[in-house]
Amino acid sequence: MSFALSRNVAAIFLAGIVVALPPALPARAETASQAPAAASTTDKDDVSSFNLENGLEVVVIPDHRAPVVTHMLWYHVGSADEEPGKSGIAHFFEHLMFKATKTYPAGEFSRKVAEIGGQENAFTSYDYTAFYQQVAPQALEMVMTYEADRMENLILNDDVVKTERDVVLEERRSRVDGDPGALLAEEVNATLYQNHPYRMPVIGWLHEMQQLNLKDALAFYEKYYTPNNATLVVSGDVDLETVKALAEKTYGKLPRRAEPGNRVRPQEPEQNTKRTVSMADPRVSQPSFQKMWLVPSYTSAKPGEAEALDLLSEILGGSTRSRIYQALVVRDGSAASAGAYYQGGSLDDGSFGIYGSPRGSATLEQVEAGVDAQIAKIIKDGVTADELEKARNRFLKSMIFARDSQSSMARIYGSTLSTGQTIKDIQEWPDRIRAVKVEDIQDVAKRYLVDSRSVTSYLMPEDGKPDQKVEEETPASEETQQPEEPAQGVVQ
Amino acid sequence: MSFALSRNVAAIFLAGIVVALPPALPARAETASQAPAAASTTDKDDVSSFNLENGLEVVVIPDHRAPVVTHMLWYHVGSADEEPGKSGIAHFFEHLMFKATKTYPAGEFSRKVAEIGGQENAFTSYDYTAFYQQVAPQALEMVMTYEADRMENLILNDDVVKTERDVVLEERRSRVDGDPGALLAEEVNATLYQNHPYRMPVIGWLHEMQQLNLKDALAFYEKYYTPNNATLVVSGDVDLETVKALAEKTYGKLPRRAEPGNRVRPQEPEQNTKRTVSMADPRVSQPSFQKMWLVPSYTSAKPGEAEALDLLSEILGGSTRSRIYQALVVRDGSAASAGAYYQGGSLDDGSFGIYGSPRGSATLEQVEAGVDAQIAKIIKDGVTADELEKARNRFLKSMIFARDSQSSMARIYGSTLSTGQTIKDIQEWPDRIRAVKVEDIQDVAKRYLVDSRSVTSYLMPEDGKPDQKVEEETPASEETQQPEEPAQGVVQ
Repeated sequence: MSFALSRNVAAIFLAGIVVALPPALPARAETASQAPAAASTTDKDDVSSFNLENGLEVVVIPDHRAPVVTHMLWYHVGSADEEPGKSGIAHFFEHLMFKATKTYPAGEFSRKVAEIGGQENAFTSYDYTAFYQQVAPQALEMVMTYEADRMENLILNDDVVKTERDVVLEERRSRVDGDPGALLAEEVNATLYQNHPYRMPVIGWLHEMQQLNLKDALAFYEKYYTPNNATLVVSGDVDLETVKALAEKTYGKLPRRAEPGNRVRPQEPEQNTKRTVSMADPRVSQPSFQKMWLVPSYTSAKPGEAEALDLLSEILGGSTRSRIYQALVVRDGSAASAGAYYQGGSLDDGSFGIYGSPRGSATLEQVEAGVDAQIAKIIKDGVTADELEKARNRFLKSMIFARDSQSSMARIYGSTLSTGQTIKDIQEWPDRIRAVKVEDIQDVAKRYLVDSRSVTSYLMPEDGKPDQKVEEETPASEETQQPEEPAQGVVQ
Repeated sequence: MSFALSRNVAAIFLAGIVVALPPALPARAETASQAPAAASTTDKDDVSSFNLENGLEVVVIPDHRAPVVTHMLWYHVGSADEEPGKSGIAHFFEHLMFKATKTYPAGEFSRKVAEIGGQENAFTSYDYTAFYQQVAPQALEMVMTYEADRMENLILNDDVVKTERDVVLEERRSRVDGDPGALLAEEVNATLYQNHPYRMPVIGWLHEMQQLNLKDALAFYEKYYTPNNATLVVSGDVDLETVKALAEKTYGKLPRRAEPGNRVRPQEPEQNTKRTVSMADPRVSQPSFQKMWLVPSYTSAKPGEAEALDLLSEILGGSTRSRIYQALVVRDGSAASAGAYYQGGSLDDGSFGIYGSPRGSATLEQVEAGVDAQIAKIIKDGVTADELEKARNRFLKSMIFARDSQSSMARIYGSTLSTGQTIKDIQEWPDRIRAVKVEDIQDVAKRYLVDSRSVTSYLMPEDGKPDQKVEEETPASEETQQPEEPAQGVVQ
């Protein structure tokens, strides 16, 4: 799947960016909308998997080109699994996992990884929380020992909770409250999702984060941080037998706890309205808009729909060759940036989005109308066979680049298996992309890109209508004009 | 509190309208926005209260003008107490309470009340569920016997659940799905409330109602339908001693169950965006708009704020003497209807709203701009002492009319005590209304009627922008031009 899993891919990209940062000071969360990050294969990947008796699923992806291994532990719990009133606990708990255990003092694991030139970090999204390290193969047993240890032996007390709560509160202040775009994105999600917990920010609502306590942390740890709720992915310079032996020796000693239960979240009702969300802030220098539709994800879609949405986003606005980019940025020059994306990598319904920002004397309204016209055209006339073929090739090719990295592969498998899909789904995904027909593209556009399931957001430099003009700028090259990624719900 | 408690008062009015209907076929839920329904007093009401050993709170309001008693049992549970994914269970359970008990066959209670010329019904709102009967004093023991019986002895099984679930599903289809205004109102609430369960419709989301089952019903009954989670209000031709004796004899025999726990719901985050929600539907003949702001309720407000919001709504658009009505309906004639309301009778934050609909060749945009101008004027210049005094008098007077009814009195006390306030609060409310000063009105307008906590909704006759013109109509008299009440979350 992969490309498709843009919501997950966001985490992947982000992770790539922030590996060197300490967990308490994570980089800004951004999405990778065009998502040429995930990978899949024409020839099947050499992937094996097995389960330990305690329920831990282990996936091994050998890649012997360099003496490096990537070790990623994916817990099947994210912010969308939080109880009402406890928003932020999933991300908060990710932070707590870096504290002392009964076996090791706080910080020892991180120091060991750093000492041998390794990298490590963790991230939380709507559907999962992942911890990873990239080290030399000889150090794999060490990281597995520490990672297994903190699944069972973490020391939680009021001191630890209070201290780390201040850290995540500060993180929210600097990353969200200090950023109009991030604040707007939160309220767009709260508007797009009327019932589903994707409505809530991964980092949590401020007033609820402030109340998170030791009791919440203990309950969360006990319920979700158990081997039977996790997938371990090891990729790189290892083989199946080595991983098997090490996994038994480390994770294999952990007891299986009660099943955390199936992940049935409140789903969306039928949506019947066109909504807008506007924010004006003096810190905004360039007006921009974004329109999002509630659409199925790879996991919730009928067969073929998600693949068609992925290719629709590629044709419409996935690259500089796309319809939107060519029409607005290249031909009429009204937009400084414009594009489209599909976030289909979630367990439940995801979103399809378009966005744009004016250039020179153009107004935001003009850009919005221009982007809307491109969608209307596809809904009315569909796409051509040649255009689909080219988009498909670009799309599949970008994945092949992506799978060139062992850590990307680990992320693709980890995120996909944490959002309700299988190894087979991942491996067959390129064939499903190849099977998408011209009429499938028009069908999903007609079915899903309708006003009554949409939210349009406006981010404005100052109070006023979405038709502010901005200073003329020297048109940047196509390279630097790459559309900015919309804010995303992944928190480190 | 009463007048103030418009969210509750909605139930009151509604109840008044539908008493004669069977529970399975309730009337359309509407709000009583200006709420001259609730009552309070200049001289303190003659009200007593006591608690049974099992925790049931009993309030007695003697009124001997006619040989009638009103018996209302208020459970402190409503749709905002539902678990995620179980929307509609509170209202569904209200229906189930009319089924057979271990003691009496289904329908016997209703038949007995009807036989003696009594009236009965029940209703569910965000914060409470109430059952009531109005009968001759001699029949009070009978209704108390039956009402107490169904708190303990209801027979719940798959048959009963399945049959009644079809009834509430049909209710939703006819009352909500068949009514664009009701559908729009649902999504306005889902947009205004980003985190709080007032976001969800009282009747429930269709797909969740379809899944409600016996297990849900049993758990709900066990947890919430217990004497220590209810307030009994008896008003009319009775005295305290009689009610005390009968209450001991009937409800007094019921066991106290586990406390249902305190009603702490997820609260709203700080809101930072101006939102719109639009719906176009061929069944709509007249375009209209409504703008709502998230504001504190009587229970959640700082002292004096809710009273000021009530008087602000009166001055702004609470009657034909209000600023909005005079400016738009009477003077420039652009609006067929226009007004303002305050829904302050909820346990958690409520809403303040304005609304309007164009007349003749006027556009909806014109009406919206006209109403907005009235708010801007109050924010800038405040109100005059004379205007406040007149509004206050109208407001207090309308309550005196309202308290002329024993059933209104029962509803005021029941709804107020079910939303976190006390008998003292109700009794002192007129004094608090008298204490509101000119500057308080401007203060709450400035503080709360800001775009970043607002949602504007547009209901349009057909696809298009909110500037549709409608056919010229013969201007109706002021009487019939009374603003229509916005849809409300009370379900019978």
